[in-house]
Amino acid sequence: MTERLVVIGGDAAGMSAASQAKRLRGDDLEVIAFERGTATSYSACGIPYWIGGQVETMDELVTRTPAEHRKNGIDVRVRHEVVAIDLEARTVDVRDLSAGRSDQVGFDQLMIATGATPVRPPIEGLGGQDVYGVQTLDDGRAVLDRITGRGKGRRAVVVGGGYIGVEMAEAMLRRGLEVTLVEAAPAVMSTLDPDMGRLVQVAMTELGIDVRVETTVESVERATREGAITGVRTSDGVIGTDLVVLGVGVRPNTELAEQAGLGLGDHHGLLPDLRMRIPGAEGVWAAGDCVEVINKVSGRWSYVPLGTHANKQGRVAGTNIGGGYAIFPGVVGTAMSAVCDLEIARTGLRTAEAETLGLEVVSQTVESTTRAGYFPGAQPLTVKVIAERSTGRLVGVQIIGREDAGKRIDAAAVAVWHGMTVAEVASLDLGYAPPFAPVWDPLLIAARKAAESLIRD
Amino acid sequence: MTERLVVIGGDAAGMSAASQAKRLRGDDLEVIAFERGTATSYSACGIPYWIGGQVETMDELVTRTPAEHRKNGIDVRVRHEVVAIDLEARTVDVRDLSAGRSDQVGFDQLMIATGATPVRPPIEGLGGQDVYGVQTLDDGRAVLDRITGRGKGRRAVVVGGGYIGVEMAEAMLRRGLEVTLVEAAPAVMSTLDPDMGRLVQVAMTELGIDVRVETTVESVERATREGAITGVRTSDGVIGTDLVVLGVGVRPNTELAEQAGLGLGDHHGLLPDLRMRIPGAEGVWAAGDCVEVINKVSGRWSYVPLGTHANKQGRVAGTNIGGGYAIFPGVVGTAMSAVCDLEIARTGLRTAEAETLGLEVVSQTVESTTRAGYFPGAQPLTVKVIAERSTGRLVGVQIIGREDAGKRIDAAAVAVWHGMTVAEVASLDLGYAPPFAPVWDPLLIAARKAAESLIRD
Repeated sequence: MTERLVVIGGDAAGMSAASQAKRLRGDDLEVIAFERGTATSYSACGIPYWIGGQVETMDELVTRTPAEHRKNGIDVRVRHEVVAIDLEARTVDVRDLSAGRSDQVGFDQLMIATGATPVRPPIEGLGGQDVYGVQTLDDGRAVLDRITGRGKGRRAVVVGGGYIGVEMAEAMLRRGLEVTLVEAAPAVMSTLDPDMGRLVQVAMTELGIDVRVETTVESVERATREGAITGVRTSDGVIGTDLVVLGVGVRPNTELAEQAGLGLGDHHGLLPDLRMRIPGAEGVWAAGDCVEVINKVSGRWSYVPLGTHANKQGRVAGTNIGGGYAIFPGVVGTAMSAVCDLEIARTGLRTAEAETLGLEVVSQTVESTTRAGYFPGAQPLTVKVIAERSTGRLVGVQIIGREDAGKRIDAAAVAVWHGMTVAEVASLDLGYAPPFAPVWDPLLIAARKAAESLIRD
Repeated sequence: MTERLVVIGGDAAGMSAASQAKRLRGDDLEVIAFERGTATSYSACGIPYWIGGQVETMDELVTRTPAEHRKNGIDVRVRHEVVAIDLEARTVDVRDLSAGRSDQVGFDQLMIATGATPVRPPIEGLGGQDVYGVQTLDDGRAVLDRITGRGKGRRAVVVGGGYIGVEMAEAMLRRGLEVTLVEAAPAVMSTLDPDMGRLVQVAMTELGIDVRVETTVESVERATREGAITGVRTSDGVIGTDLVVLGVGVRPNTELAEQAGLGLGDHHGLLPDLRMRIPGAEGVWAAGDCVEVINKVSGRWSYVPLGTHANKQGRVAGTNIGGGYAIFPGVVGTAMSAVCDLEIARTGLRTAEAETLGLEVVSQTVESTTRAGYFPGAQPLTVKVIAERSTGRLVGVQIIGREDAGKRIDAAAVAVWHGMTVAEVASLDLGYAPPFAPVWDPLLIAARKAAESLIRD
């Protein structure tokens, strides 16, 4: 008997699930995917690079268009917004945004992949024109049109120094804007320890971005109440600007799911099981930026909206919907970014996270190089290792360096995944040759020093 | 009571042990280190890059000179060759090569770090002038003097396509020589599967190196019996040349230990325990290229002469000699090299090694990119994953690609270290951002395909 899968949300998680389920079940499964915007399967993580000009066209960010999905037998309906879910009746109410018409569509299986929404802090004047979030391709287009347009002012303030904030600050700088980034915390990149975040800040300042830390935004000033932005009033005075970009992160877009009676976690995300099913809701699945994930280090639910998780989770859901078996076992909090040629990477828990969990930790930071010191092109590299004092378990690693530094986080991520002790990490058999690493790999040195400090202290 | 540690061999393993033991025990330990050559603590792995000109001077390869070691309280005696060990009397016989005088020196602890010797295949004419091994700085100096000298011929044949052979071929090419590499196997880099080795071979050929595989050397031809080399006779005809470089690998330099009655393994290396002690020989330690190591994947002794292991093992021995506790838990066979900008990396077992152990394996090779496909500078990358069919356990990974490809082996090395299944590897939380990886990391894709093939086949 043919079943129908309805997918809400046409980006990474939703379309991965749709594609994988369709691939496995073929004609046995009807798949309808509703997308509020106009694009499907695009790289939201790539938007800052498109805005910055490294990626030339929006199309390059699209992995698969609606037409390509349709060729694979998926009934993709763009500009269709699901406005209600009825889990009893097993229907969704859908609004066709182009035609202005509403419909009710039944489902057997429901995939919720509604993604995330930029956080908009409750600041006076932040509603209204000249304020941009960066989440969808349409958001990206709006910013790009604005900053590459003529005569509209060349000053921008980025509110928040997380990944998106930092990437957007660089992107706008590349487009010739005067950019100020305002961050309430003592350092940018609050996913890093402050000492590591400060290295990022130095690099941003060297690029020419005006970075103001420990600075809170009090209000956005406008020419008239609804008029153009003239400045941002902060705890550090008024910063004149023509536009504001939100970089304070995103939150799960889960109102629809909540209204349907599905439970949410502390981060307002859905809480799927290992197979990406929503417990207690037969035939309902969720994946991507609208769900929380288990952090394998803390054992707690956390919110890590990243394309790489969305793709994996979507595929897991699709495999299970398709009659196969797959699990998403959780994350260890690996993340990367770049400021110009500075590579920034982290995995596991940062010091403050570990302490919040009641772990007593030690840390060691080493300065080393990406290649043998004598080899041409060796670049400086800073590695910070965080270990639990009582057990020696590696709980987190942060790496900052130039070219060829960032992906070194992966070995640390696998070590954290396994709860290795720093003593054992120091013994790992990592790749060595003079063009690629010093004979003592920087990660091994940091782990060894952490292991030694556990004995010595 | 003051003890005396005698160290035989002044490179990585010996001097790491000496330094660490001295650091821990101070005046309580007298340390005498004998080195046959003139240098201590140098990077043998860096020699091809010095010969090739990327590293300008020999001094850059030296981490610590004899004088620097002496400042740290270690009595280093260069140009001193230990010619006999008496384990009963607890003495070594030492020949001062400069003075032409012999001495007997007593020890309480003995560290054997005699390194390796280039393998010299039993080929007619290979003994004598114009044939070079590359193991010590003195070897490197000899090659460099020869190839940068004038009027001595500009043609070289490298016998053997292992790491050293491949690196030396490139180094001599950089110096303007006409280089032919002769390899008996069907592909160069026999530490890789032949399909991956062939990618290396293509890159070498493109550089302008004449690579002859499935070709055996029959004899070396000389103008007169003891005279200059004129050519190398191979199964593929005579190759005219002015010099021959040995690239068929090295073997443990263990004659001295063997004569002292210490047991050797199948690869003619010493067999230390986890703490780098020689079982059955009280107070005798060994580390570096003269020992075999346990491969954690096969559970067997193997021979992996690499500077990174020598340093770690030496430090472990030194910690234990110094009254601390440390172990060297074995290796997983991680190794890296480069041909020009092509990065070559491997870990675990290659297919033939696995099959020799009686494992039935499946493998999957994927072509991907170092960055998101749309991101500028994305480079091709080939990843091969080898898994045990019956358990799904990851047993080996090989990576070949341009810039920023090689060190990706580290995540695989940690996964192999833990005996992860390919299904779990496919779920790993590796670093993602468009400048650093596609949203599906190449390693994860290869692991996923391997996992799928285990179910499908």
